[in-house]
Amino acid sequence: MGLVTSNISISLDGFVAGPNQSLENPIGEGGMRLHQWAFATERWQAEHGRGGGERNADSEVVDAVVADVGAYVMGRNMFGPGRGEWDLEWSGWWGDDPPYHVPVFVLTHHAREPLVMQGGTTFNFVTDGIESALLQAKASAGDQNVEIPGGAETIRQYLRAGLLDQLWLHIVPILLGSGERLLENVGDPVLEPIEAIASPAVTHIKYRIVRG
Amino acid sequence: MGLVTSNISISLDGFVAGPNQSLENPIGEGGMRLHQWAFATERWQAEHGRGGGERNADSEVVDAVVADVGAYVMGRNMFGPGRGEWDLEWSGWWGDDPPYHVPVFVLTHHAREPLVMQGGTTFNFVTDGIESALLQAKASAGDQNVEIPGGAETIRQYLRAGLLDQLWLHIVPILLGSGERLLENVGDPVLEPIEAIASPAVTHIKYRIVRG
Repeated sequence: MGLVTSNISISLDGFVAGPNQSLENPIGEGGMRLHQWAFATERWQAEHGRGGGERNADSEVVDAVVADVGAYVMGRNMFGPGRGEWDLEWSGWWGDDPPYHVPVFVLTHHAREPLVMQGGTTFNFVTDGIESALLQAKASAGDQNVEIPGGAETIRQYLRAGLLDQLWLHIVPILLGSGERLLENVGDPVLEPIEAIASPAVTHIKYRIVRG
Repeated sequence: MGLVTSNISISLDGFVAGPNQSLENPIGEGGMRLHQWAFATERWQAEHGRGGGERNADSEVVDAVVADVGAYVMGRNMFGPGRGEWDLEWSGWWGDDPPYHVPVFVLTHHAREPLVMQGGTTFNFVTDGIESALLQAKASAGDQNVEIPGGAETIRQYLRAGLLDQLWLHIVPILLGSGERLLENVGDPVLEPIEAIASPAVTHIKYRIVRG
């Protein structure tokens, strides 16, 4: 049986996006600094169809993040702009060959036929809530994990509902000062750190979430 | 030349004290949960004149925290209650043999003669600001480090002033939800993680602070 996992980059002061998020800048002012460590890795560049990048401890973390994922559940803001009323031309931010390569279940209030992309990614649109999306993703993933890549509010929903098994935080040594916090209004989950990996750019801590 | 260091336990959501701090409960509701990992170690118990406790990765961290400290600089709230108008009977929270064993420089607005305790601790009271206190502590520490154990506002003052070389965070896997944050209003220091140590109870990340 696979796990329900999530991984996200977070500033040392707790923000997963900078202030003044907008359609033009969905991760807010300074928010891109949270992701530089990943962009710098060989694995990330390869996942996005490019060469170059470094092979280091961070690259191995990116490997591990995608290694056992059989399906994703994604919030509507991560798939597209606005409140989910995308026209049929909208196929996500990632071009014809998105970096998922497995089924992706997109939470939305607007029904839509599945969207088959190149490279193994299919976007499925789920209108009946987070539990239904997770059940569909688990059925699709089989023995592999279901990863919830974001956005932050979607991760919070699953954490709050007690449906997450593992949370992997990539703690970036910057202070954003303001923006969107991840760990607010998620109750009081019992977390157990099970792995820590350090690099000069970021510290990766994997937490097991203990089910009550 | 020694370093100026600080180390503090912090919740995963960024709090170093719980809500509703008071004279009776200076670390706030739930704040004691931040320190259980340290209390459980053999080293902490020994430092406080007791036996027992566990010898584990966390105990080694407590060893390392105190290993090279030649002097401390402490905020007035850590030394005593109120605004520093302690009567001459007040000699800190720790009894006759405080767990410092070296000179401690206490920031206050109220002059007072040095207070020589048992076991090597002398409390010196500094009324002319954080830079003066640090200079005195450095002179006293020689080649050893000056450690700033708290409170949080004192650590923030040194961080903001660019006077801290190293910050060691003990990230406790709990969410306090509210309380006093450490990393607020400290500017945008350049931090570099140089060590991470994981245990089931807490993750220790040591940051070097890069001087501009």
